[in-house]
Amino acid sequence: MIDNVAIVSIGDELINGFTVDTNSSWIAQKICQYRAISIKSKLTISDNKNEIVDKLDHLLNQNYRFIFITGGLGPTHDDITKDALKKYFDCDLVLNDNHFLYLKNKYNHHVSADLNLIKEQSKILTLSQPIPNKEGVALGMMIEHKNTMIFVMPGVPLEMKHMFNDYIIPNYIEEYYQFQPKYITLLTTGIYESALYKMLQNTIYSNKKEFTVSFLPSYTGVKIRLGLADISASLTSFKKQVMLNIGDYVYGYNNDKIESIVSDILINKSLTLSIAESCTGGYLSKRITDIPNSSKFFIGSIVSYSNEIKNKYLDISNQVLEDKGAVSGEVALLMAQNIRKKFDTDIGISTTGISGPSGGTKDKPVGRIYIAIVFRGHEIVKEFDLLPKRDKHREIAAHTAFNMLRLLIK
Amino acid sequence: MIDNVAIVSIGDELINGFTVDTNSSWIAQKICQYRAISIKSKLTISDNKNEIVDKLDHLLNQNYRFIFITGGLGPTHDDITKDALKKYFDCDLVLNDNHFLYLKNKYNHHVSADLNLIKEQSKILTLSQPIPNKEGVALGMMIEHKNTMIFVMPGVPLEMKHMFNDYIIPNYIEEYYQFQPKYITLLTTGIYESALYKMLQNTIYSNKKEFTVSFLPSYTGVKIRLGLADISASLTSFKKQVMLNIGDYVYGYNNDKIESIVSDILINKSLTLSIAESCTGGYLSKRITDIPNSSKFFIGSIVSYSNEIKNKYLDISNQVLEDKGAVSGEVALLMAQNIRKKFDTDIGISTTGISGPSGGTKDKPVGRIYIAIVFRGHEIVKEFDLLPKRDKHREIAAHTAFNMLRLLIK
Repeated sequence: MIDNVAIVSIGDELINGFTVDTNSSWIAQKICQYRAISIKSKLTISDNKNEIVDKLDHLLNQNYRFIFITGGLGPTHDDITKDALKKYFDCDLVLNDNHFLYLKNKYNHHVSADLNLIKEQSKILTLSQPIPNKEGVALGMMIEHKNTMIFVMPGVPLEMKHMFNDYIIPNYIEEYYQFQPKYITLLTTGIYESALYKMLQNTIYSNKKEFTVSFLPSYTGVKIRLGLADISASLTSFKKQVMLNIGDYVYGYNNDKIESIVSDILINKSLTLSIAESCTGGYLSKRITDIPNSSKFFIGSIVSYSNEIKNKYLDISNQVLEDKGAVSGEVALLMAQNIRKKFDTDIGISTTGISGPSGGTKDKPVGRIYIAIVFRGHEIVKEFDLLPKRDKHREIAAHTAFNMLRLLIK
Repeated sequence: MIDNVAIVSIGDELINGFTVDTNSSWIAQKICQYRAISIKSKLTISDNKNEIVDKLDHLLNQNYRFIFITGGLGPTHDDITKDALKKYFDCDLVLNDNHFLYLKNKYNHHVSADLNLIKEQSKILTLSQPIPNKEGVALGMMIEHKNTMIFVMPGVPLEMKHMFNDYIIPNYIEEYYQFQPKYITLLTTGIYESALYKMLQNTIYSNKKEFTVSFLPSYTGVKIRLGLADISASLTSFKKQVMLNIGDYVYGYNNDKIESIVSDILINKSLTLSIAESCTGGYLSKRITDIPNSSKFFIGSIVSYSNEIKNKYLDISNQVLEDKGAVSGEVALLMAQNIRKKFDTDIGISTTGISGPSGGTKDKPVGRIYIAIVFRGHEIVKEFDLLPKRDKHREIAAHTAFNMLRLLIK
């Protein structure tokens, strides 16, 4: 028996596309990893009472075990989810004393605290169970209707996630469903989908009853998603089998970031890093310093956007800049060598290229980039012609640089 | 008469939350700006033929004028949208010669071009009209069914956007509906929602029959969304009225980015900029160089993540670093002064702070940051205690720095 799930997001902001709905994806990712649970539908509805009532009615006639609703619980006049539910179930609201007391204490010292607002936000449907909210004001609800459990949460992601992780999962999911990852995603880079497919063809074919394999190409690499087709099989052992074939190209799993992988290696090996950036303009440094521990290995960077800075602070002679051009393998190598020397690090890494939209020539078109890494006698310079769209170019450049670094130090 | 719209996204990747659905938001943003068109529903369905058929049937019984469907048109076995439609409408596929020929010519010189695949991707339902795809392979379709027009597009955003902008809008929307922006968003920063509300209270009240006003607070400022309640009113004149009250706090409109606003001013005034970053680790430089024209005014940066770099390359004495601490107003000011001097720019800007998760002290908690700007005799240093979560801290820090710069030079 499979229990079906619907996820409902309520709000004009979502329906008109001003806000991208990330709540429903987050909930889906959480819930799809439990055995015998299947997500069948995601729905967005505007802040309109009749629409909510109509669509809820339709959903409740479709034998869902769980309906997760987010949005429209706040204090403004647009927030009418509670009203719509009250109308649909034809029942009253009741003050939840615990939550009201909790909020009163919490906002006791706030001058701007509005007792009426706090009271309204502490009311729930008489036929519902409260779901505490420690990150915000609006109390959540669980409503049982025939065979369906309806969970109603605020749209603020922080509050919704807290309710979901701290109350819904432990009380209503974990007790009844086995946690069983149905998907593992392998992250590859630097290899084509077709080449990966050839390496995996036999493995896919001989396991096709139990496992699904999807190839998801993107600008920065191909993701391979392994899925369970037969819930009695083991995804872990299938993963091992797949890794035997393509392990060399896999840099991480699921939501891993390549800069995190690189950081872990640098920290483990006690290596230090400095960066000289031209076309990426600080993006490599930004990505590295996204990592909380980066001060353990990252010393600093020079973003040499102009030639003067390349000359004056990265010691690249005007002669070389003129003869070879700022966008050249020679300049990339000198940038990496000199930042490493000046900042006294184990590794120096550099980028120089043309991200566009303008600046290209016949010899060096928009998209051209040189990436160099200098590390203990190794000196690598590579030339690439990446997608000539500014944002994608910088994205792929950073990913490529991190992968070159990973391969060199791993 | 209002014509209703439903937007349908098809794919297991979306339903299980691995991919956030941005297509439906993009379509919504486009279509909601036409008069007499209203989006009523957004729906995500898995790659399952029966599910698609069931949900399409339900939608077609609800009197939608337009149903926009994306996803599931590709060449792999998961892509079953066309099959589902074929089943629902009980009709055959027909080869579209134009598209087939176009693809054959386009991929003529590709060794890997698969003629069979190209043929399959050029087939559409007999009862449909083709929608050309110049960015990819799968041909789109328009199906008219009773009073509903169904548009079927690939899920690849680039291909979908191209079909929508180049075929659907000009052929099916613009001819019949007047373009009439129903929303204008004013971007404010550095002021509370409650203060803005007070300034606008009377204006909101006296216009409430014709216009809606929503306050959307975020970490980097409050957005104020003005909406049309009465489609015969003029949003432009209402905007003017609102700006009279709060214009000083508005830095841009709709999707404007603050770094673009700042860049425009710098270019207009022929000013040059250099940056010294500590806690933001390259993020300010990255944001500035996201702008295509940034090489016109941005010279470069030093990311001085370690104290040695602050000392050696930003000339901050070890004495000051020890006495005042690297995270201090004194160091921030010296960083801005010295980067300006060394990089010989009109403006120097700097950040030094504690983004966390660790590194805080009792005196200087996680979240503390100092931002300094030096420009023609002006020297500004400000201390802030921002949200002590690393990613948000860096986000707000960058936004705050750009806004300080904007206010100084505008």
